[in-house]
Amino acid sequence: MAVNIPDDLVEATGGKIVLCVLDGLGGLPEQPSGKTELESATKPNLDRIAAASALGLHQPVAPGVTPGSGPGHLALFGYDPLRWNIGRGVLSALGVGFQLREGDLATRLNFASVDANGNITDRRAGRPSDDENKRLVAKLRERVKAPKGSELFFESEKEHRAVMILRGAGLHADLEDTDPQETGVAPLKVKASTREAESTAKLVQQVLDDSRKALSDESKANALLARGFAAYGRYPTMQERYKLKCIAIAKYPMYRGVARLVGMDAQDEPASDEHSVELMKQKWDQYDFHFVHFKAVDSRGEDGDFAAKVKAIETLDPLVGAIEKLNPDVLIVTGDHSTPSRLRAHSWHPVPVLIKSPWTRPNQGATFGERACAAGELGVFATVHLMSLALAHASRLSKFGA
Amino acid sequence: MAVNIPDDLVEATGGKIVLCVLDGLGGLPEQPSGKTELESATKPNLDRIAAASALGLHQPVAPGVTPGSGPGHLALFGYDPLRWNIGRGVLSALGVGFQLREGDLATRLNFASVDANGNITDRRAGRPSDDENKRLVAKLRERVKAPKGSELFFESEKEHRAVMILRGAGLHADLEDTDPQETGVAPLKVKASTREAESTAKLVQQVLDDSRKALSDESKANALLARGFAAYGRYPTMQERYKLKCIAIAKYPMYRGVARLVGMDAQDEPASDEHSVELMKQKWDQYDFHFVHFKAVDSRGEDGDFAAKVKAIETLDPLVGAIEKLNPDVLIVTGDHSTPSRLRAHSWHPVPVLIKSPWTRPNQGATFGERACAAGELGVFATVHLMSLALAHASRLSKFGA
Repeated sequence: MAVNIPDDLVEATGGKIVLCVLDGLGGLPEQPSGKTELESATKPNLDRIAAASALGLHQPVAPGVTPGSGPGHLALFGYDPLRWNIGRGVLSALGVGFQLREGDLATRLNFASVDANGNITDRRAGRPSDDENKRLVAKLRERVKAPKGSELFFESEKEHRAVMILRGAGLHADLEDTDPQETGVAPLKVKASTREAESTAKLVQQVLDDSRKALSDESKANALLARGFAAYGRYPTMQERYKLKCIAIAKYPMYRGVARLVGMDAQDEPASDEHSVELMKQKWDQYDFHFVHFKAVDSRGEDGDFAAKVKAIETLDPLVGAIEKLNPDVLIVTGDHSTPSRLRAHSWHPVPVLIKSPWTRPNQGATFGERACAAGELGVFATVHLMSLALAHASRLSKFGA
Repeated sequence: MAVNIPDDLVEATGGKIVLCVLDGLGGLPEQPSGKTELESATKPNLDRIAAASALGLHQPVAPGVTPGSGPGHLALFGYDPLRWNIGRGVLSALGVGFQLREGDLATRLNFASVDANGNITDRRAGRPSDDENKRLVAKLRERVKAPKGSELFFESEKEHRAVMILRGAGLHADLEDTDPQETGVAPLKVKASTREAESTAKLVQQVLDDSRKALSDESKANALLARGFAAYGRYPTMQERYKLKCIAIAKYPMYRGVARLVGMDAQDEPASDEHSVELMKQKWDQYDFHFVHFKAVDSRGEDGDFAAKVKAIETLDPLVGAIEKLNPDVLIVTGDHSTPSRLRAHSWHPVPVLIKSPWTRPNQGATFGERACAAGELGVFATVHLMSLALAHASRLSKFGA
């Protein structure tokens, strides 16, 4: 009989786990001989915790592969991102809190500007405000009808971004983007990449044509570009897999979306990072597993601002200290991927991680940094195993075999 | 064409290999800043050998997963424990030296006590002596007949434990334990967990009912509880896979059982750890691969006695020195899993390993300990790869590809 690790070994009781994600945590030195952002930061709490923790580096997808935020988080939650790849459309729909049903087809939309010849002049329609976005979405809802036998939903996201969900029987998501990723050309037609998706391609094209008509009286946002078609399939929940009652505390909708995908409670919308810790404190007793997400480190990395990324880590350091004071049985601090400021983007570099529990073999004088983690007891491991480690450290996994 | 590593690369000649298993070797510090049992031990031989060895940490099943002794050893022998999972029944039958045949159904039995209402009052029948156990098993052999078309065997294990083997066509092992794991209730009926196993469930129930009658005149051991039904399937042998003539030298039956499962010679029953080394010396020329098993380190770990575990390592240290003097081409010293005395149980922590051969990249001043191994050239790796490394260091693996 095949054994599914760790699910088949999970016990119903055990310790409380906190997964604290500093988005984009891993980095690079500015000079080959220098320190990374994390190694440069003054972070007494993280360093003190690291000195009592199991340290290592984890790889979200595979060596050399740069993960998106979806795969990065899925791997952290123990879902192999190659098997459980989420389409962007689904991620966006979840992010805005839309209640997807099995088989729904979701896609991201950009409001865009086209000229009299139908060629794109601005792929973001001059970045409308969120209010303007809401007005445009309301117009689409009013004027665009669902194709026969299906339901159609438009949801506002932010600035130029919206989400479209098509619900009906037999929809296929093997559709190519209509966003040509350049200006001066017309939006592409919806094209099926498999035979099965051909009828869906026609349906979607019809909706996009109708939408174009609906927006024809707009001066700027007079077109739509569709990206990331994806069908929603239900994920086994973390409660089902790990017997953990899980909460996600994240300011940004996308991270709540991924958390919801795996069944976490993600109702709360913290107003600030400090408020996230407050919320965790309030909900402490109600959950076995707290996932808290901090965005700033990644954002400063993407800005390409080394000093600001260092500062972001330093700002979060006391919050990690406050979380530690809640005394979880297992505290994990890590990122979902690396975002070296010198690259101004996500990267493939393995991500530093610490696991604090009573069951570690810490290295004398270790601090929290990429090099210290490379010398840690966990070695370099696939991120998908992190949940097994968390469960083990929380005394929630039984022995395999006699 | 798929290549089966290492089997397809194995050569017929090469060096002699010793796999020296200190059961439960890995440990944890008593305080986060402290040393582990292995790091605390005064062990001049192991430290001297480590300074000339390749060091690393290995994970028997998967990160975070605590292995039983069966899976731990299978992994050491190069058999993926997830694929070659051994059922408890089979492990026990092998442990008592029973010659299993393909398709045999084996299960562990507990002698138990039930009251007049048939409810369990003691799941271990007051822990009978080994002699008493033998008397009970003789009674079962005499009084319980094999179901038509099959053969039935009862074997004595220890105290309250025995093994039952049913031999016949079409037996299925997908049966649930009859041990309810609590007192005050009746033993469970044999229940099939798949359709295919339903007829087997009936057969086994009949045997258990007959056994109950056979034991009805006993005051204490008047019932049986069955646990760990498992069918025996032949394993490819180490001789077949690695072209190695292999011997197992182990005091405890279970380890000889696992060794026999993969085709090792395991006739000898050493009287002591010193005698194990003597036996190895005597048999030195007859085998390419010597597996020697020492139990004490694990036992002291399970006792929760840090100092005694340290002492057990220190006691074994000169024996490892004596083995080294036999001058194997490859000497491996490791454990099958970790047993930190602070946990009083097997644990998921990766296991220190040293491989001594002329082909290593030792670290200056390295000693044999968890932290030194974490910094070693082998990194943290899956235990199933250890045999490939052993064969490579013994010049027994050919090049892959041109």
